Amino acid sequence: MKVSIVGATGYGGLELIRLLKNHPHFEIASLHTSSKFGRQIHEDNPHLRHLEYALEEIDPEKISKKSEIVFLATPSGVSAKLARAFYQLGVKIIDLSGDLRLKNPEEYEEWYKHSAAPVEVLDEAVYGLSEWNAKHIKQAKIVANPGCYPTATLLGLAPLYTEQWAEGKDVIVDAKSGVSGAGKSPSAGTHYSEINENLKIYKVHQHQHIPEIEQQLANWLQDSGPISFSTHLVPMTRGIMSTMYVKLRKRTTTKELLDLYKTVYEGHPFVRIQPQDAFPCTKQVYGSNFCDIGVAFDERTNKATIVSVIDNLMKGAAGQAVQNANILLGAEETAGLLNIPLYP
Amino acid sequence: MKVSIVGATGYGGLELIRLLKNHPHFEIASLHTSSKFGRQIHEDNPHLRHLEYALEEIDPEKISKKSEIVFLATPSGVSAKLARAFYQLGVKIIDLSGDLRLKNPEEYEEWYKHSAAPVEVLDEAVYGLSEWNAKHIKQAKIVANPGCYPTATLLGLAPLYTEQWAEGKDVIVDAKSGVSGAGKSPSAGTHYSEINENLKIYKVHQHQHIPEIEQQLANWLQDSGPISFSTHLVPMTRGIMSTMYVKLRKRTTTKELLDLYKTVYEGHPFVRIQPQDAFPCTKQVYGSNFCDIGVAFDERTNKATIVSVIDNLMKGAAGQAVQNANILLGAEETAGLLNIPLYP
Amino acid sequence: MKVSIVGATGYGGLELIRLLKNHPHFEIASLHTSSKFGRQIHEDNPHLRHLEYALEEIDPEKISKKSEIVFLATPSGVSAKLARAFYQLGVKIIDLSGDLRLKNPEEYEEWYKHSAAPVEVLDEAVYGLSEWNAKHIKQAKIVANPGCYPTATLLGLAPLYTEQWAEGKDVIVDAKSGVSGAGKSPSAGTHYSEINENLKIYKVHQHQHIPEIEQQLANWLQDSGPISFSTHLVPMTRGIMSTMYVKLRKRTTTKELLDLYKTVYEGHPFVRIQPQDAFPCTKQVYGSNFCDIGVAFDERTNKATIVSVIDNLMKGAAGQAVQNANILLGAEETAGLLNIPLYP
Amino acid sequence: MKVSIVGATGYGGLELIRLLKNHPHFEIASLHTSSKFGRQIHEDNPHLRHLEYALEEIDPEKISKKSEIVFLATPSGVSAKLARAFYQLGVKIIDLSGDLRLKNPEEYEEWYKHSAAPVEVLDEAVYGLSEWNAKHIKQAKIVANPGCYPTATLLGLAPLYTEQWAEGKDVIVDAKSGVSGAGKSPSAGTHYSEINENLKIYKVHQHQHIPEIEQQLANWLQDSGPISFSTHLVPMTRGIMSTMYVKLRKRTTTKELLDLYKTVYEGHPFVRIQPQDAFPCTKQVYGSNFCDIGVAFDERTNKATIVSVIDNLMKGAAGQAVQNANILLGAEETAGLLNIPLYP
Repeated sequence: MKVSIVGATGYGGLELIRLLKNHPHFEIASLHTSSKFGRQIHEDNPHLRHLEYALEEIDPEKISKKSEIVFLATPSGVSAKLARAFYQLGVKIIDLSGDLRLKNPEEYEEWYKHSAAPVEVLDEAVYGLSEWNAKHIKQAKIVANPGCYPTATLLGLAPLYTEQWAEGKDVIVDAKSGVSGAGKSPSAGTHYSEINENLKIYKVHQHQHIPEIEQQLANWLQDSGPISFSTHLVPMTRGIMSTMYVKLRKRTTTKELLDLYKTVYEGHPFVRIQPQDAFPCTKQVYGSNFCDIGVAFDERTNKATIVSVIDNLMKGAAGQAVQNANILLGAEETAGLLNIPLYP
Repeated sequence: MKVSIVGATGYGGLELIRLLKNHPHFEIASLHTSSKFGRQIHEDNPHLRHLEYALEEIDPEKISKKSEIVFLATPSGVSAKLARAFYQLGVKIIDLSGDLRLKNPEEYEEWYKHSAAPVEVLDEAVYGLSEWNAKHIKQAKIVANPGCYPTATLLGLAPLYTEQWAEGKDVIVDAKSGVSGAGKSPSAGTHYSEINENLKIYKVHQHQHIPEIEQQLANWLQDSGPISFSTHLVPMTRGIMSTMYVKLRKRTTTKELLDLYKTVYEGHPFVRIQPQDAFPCTKQVYGSNFCDIGVAFDERTNKATIVSVIDNLMKGAAGQAVQNANILLGAEETAGLLNIPLYP
Repeated sequence: MKVSIVGATGYGGLELIRLLKNHPHFEIASLHTSSKFGRQIHEDNPHLRHLEYALEEIDPEKISKKSEIVFLATPSGVSAKLARAFYQLGVKIIDLSGDLRLKNPEEYEEWYKHSAAPVEVLDEAVYGLSEWNAKHIKQAKIVANPGCYPTATLLGLAPLYTEQWAEGKDVIVDAKSGVSGAGKSPSAGTHYSEINENLKIYKVHQHQHIPEIEQQLANWLQDSGPISFSTHLVPMTRGIMSTMYVKLRKRTTTKELLDLYKTVYEGHPFVRIQPQDAFPCTKQVYGSNFCDIGVAFDERTNKATIVSVIDNLMKGAAGQAVQNANILLGAEETAGLLNIPLYP
Repeated sequence: MKVSIVGATGYGGLELIRLLKNHPHFEIASLHTSSKFGRQIHEDNPHLRHLEYALEEIDPEKISKKSEIVFLATPSGVSAKLARAFYQLGVKIIDLSGDLRLKNPEEYEEWYKHSAAPVEVLDEAVYGLSEWNAKHIKQAKIVANPGCYPTATLLGLAPLYTEQWAEGKDVIVDAKSGVSGAGKSPSAGTHYSEINENLKIYKVHQHQHIPEIEQQLANWLQDSGPISFSTHLVPMTRGIMSTMYVKLRKRTTTKELLDLYKTVYEGHPFVRIQPQDAFPCTKQVYGSNFCDIGVAFDERTNKATIVSVIDNLMKGAAGQAVQNANILLGAEETAGLLNIPLYP
């Protein structure tokens, strides 16, 4: 099946190329950007030196003649404008931006500070948290691929919420990310000498992924409340860790927690539950589509500590997008995604 | 005043040399280790190439003839044994290890897994959180220098606890540290290729700094409960950040929180409160004795988020030890400690 | 075809697992180590959590019944002892250590400081620089897989030597490596806090890869002399860069140099020659089997500057080993090796 | 003595503030930038939170009324324009840019690609390589502070050149730098995700520091020829290492080389010669004004390998500038500069 990538030169787009180039079922029909038309993708991306793809402009009509699926790896605000055209042309959309994730356009505009996508598009979009929404993804015309923080956080919280173990109040999510999540455009905040040997906290109480997480949590647990959510920038390129502190409705043990997580995620090859007393580190999923989760019950405070790690560009972006494309296609969800994490 | 350093070749000891060598009031009389007697300190520490100090064995009696203050920068378990000898010889002790911080020997043994120091020593030891205990430090014969995590955490929580704003329950402390906190001995857990481009969580619910923090919090607030405390290893050498989530007894605003912090820390030159909407990063205190604190009130969750950063080897170890020595001496507390953070 | 890996828990062995697990032609029959028999490989290597392989002891006879090829990813000194047994049992050997590379046992003992392999084994071993020795590798019973520095250096120098452009005297090779080349055992020299934010030079004039490089250069150019060779440790995990300064027999231009390199490496998919005025960085080959080379002629000094980069664990170790296994098998040399470099 | 800093918000300017704020002889009279007038220096530089200095515009006349020395820490091209004004007003100038270092204006324009400073200014400027030019610096009205690479390289080569041991031909300088040398402005080439876990070579044969080094070498040795000079970007913030390969006029030994270096640098407290078989790493001078040098003679190739390290922002910029100011003042050259390197 032929696919096109819009926004091919950003980190998300480049990761899609990495995955789709060697994919057993998909073939890259074309790469699109908002500039540099005619240049070869390898000219500014020397790691792709052996590949030949000319960059093309973003013309939905032309793309619709080449491809059945389009991956939108564009900055926030762009998909909101592009999605309708592809939708009307009958091209399936997998959107990696945040534009199509929030069902409520006002909420989008409050957190993202620009105009929301058309309501008909938002209504059609299926939230692409693969492990929890495969049934709808399979039928979708538009997949709103989850954000990196929401993926790590929701996969970590899902068993406690869907099984009604969580109290749903006073949940703390302390999230940490590598710098590639900030994208490819240089800025003072991503300048090497400012980031190296430095740990920062940013967007305190204001990260646009908060409503995305809360929207999904509310689907799982009726009286789910607001979460405390902080994001930190860690001096590394790839990786996200969410450390989550959850009050439970009943006392439990680490053993019981583990049993719950293993049961819930049985049959989901990309979620790997750690053995007791072992917690995951980000490097153990580096370059892969895995989400590794460790859990412990703290008897002193009567809270569960849940730790979830992903590669933000893989399970947190391009990897999950390809997983969703596999589901759309009706193929094995692991197709093209079973590479082993790069270690060390 | 002459001082000696025991454990001079570890990271804490080397940082003491850096500070004391150019200190206006102290002179290094001798350096001591448990091995390598007779070797020059610069032989295994090329950054000290221009200095001449022979390493000597640890003989309290001899040391007592040279020095009025001894800094113990030894691993946990060693000070518990050495402290009594120095105490009986009338040498003032500033202990950087965790051995003399917990008043309750059983608690020590539960968390540290080896024998506690003699009760008479523990009774005599004054907890050296300089900003909050100067009155007692001034008179002390033994100063138990706080741990790195407790320093960042307690300075961050103190205004909310001492002023009775905190509920004292359900406090979450999500702490992150650079790798130098693990000391100078190589191990699988500090091997470069394992740590670089990696973020780890460790000692979940089990860090030995938990009882130290809770002991002090209970001094400040009557019904203070257990805290949730997690520690993460960040791929950087120096720096600690504590991100703290605190439920308050009343609704407030970020502005009011800031006023509280500024008032409480007025006249304390090493604690710098950030302006509104600015949060500290670890690099802004690199190599210095500052503790920088940022605060915000989250109206959605009705909790305060407090962020506190220090250099773990400075305010979290050697810097605070020298600050305590200044206080002991009756000198200006900033003597020898006003170097500007190394940036970038 | 079934293969076994001896030394499966080191960085070279783990990288072999990563490559062979998803290889179209090879199947991992067994993993062997000198300890930890019976443990699952994933127990100490959480990135492999989804794999099931029990570690087995090193018994050549048993291995010979399971596998046609054995990869030896053992420390220097071990292959010298093991190789004969496998050879006599008719198992083909691909040895990643330095033990079988030097034809002259005295030279080996001078540089490696322990006993050389038996002469019959050394005589049988074929030097596995894939691009330059495929004809012999195809027939080999033992392949001595090249070292990481020699691979980067020899691929960079080969066109100038084989085509007799180099003077062969006064060649300077200034090589730089990431830390994973030092292996998985922790030591003071690989302790995170010592390596991070640090650049070191090591083994000046004494690196054991010097005779390996000179042996091959002498095969290519009659009056090839000793090289100046320095190795530096760079604060990163993966990657090698060799910067080489070569006096030529005639004046030339960068354009002519480029033409030479492109011609020589035509048909060699893993060697990618940079366009004029572009030099490779290590990240552009991260996690891949590529060797990227840039060249320039310096008219001021009449010397060529050649820059060659590889991933030390891939083209510098496991990747080239699999490439050689492909050649041995008579398969496409790129089988299982065409993954795109991980970027960023 | 009062001093002003022009270009106070760049990395060089900030490092000057760090050094001059606690200097025994100098007092910062004012800070100047080309923008942000009226803002406090701490507003955009939180590590300086405790300091109060308003940024002022660059008005040489006003500055001349406040200060006797002005430090120009401005980008290349700016000093060329500013220097004459200060010179004519009788303010002593220490210029950290490259604008006043090359005596030949055409050479400057060839390598720097913009207009050279007025000839009268160039004629007046004294090259501020402190250890080798103190006699002239003492009398100077304008000091052209050396570049970071030239400082490391020239201090390393000086004994071989001034004592006529070097052949002066075929010298190779393979230099490596941390990223702070690229300054504070973000760009694609200093974006964290591009630099981290990456090693780059840049400006091959074209670095503007080449003529600066050759100009000084020619002063020391009559038939000194062009050098091969390469610069690499290492994933760290601070530090420069020059690895130098020098053909000598006679065979020698490492011991004799060491004796030469020790003799030449006796009485120069900032140059520390390593013991035999020990080579310096960049971290051992971190944050300090030291230049550490290691040497070895390679009997196989008959060349000397010289390794020299500095902190590029200290001895390579602000530190040497303050050293030169000390010399100008007639003070101890080490005043305010004897802080111990930050380690680890």
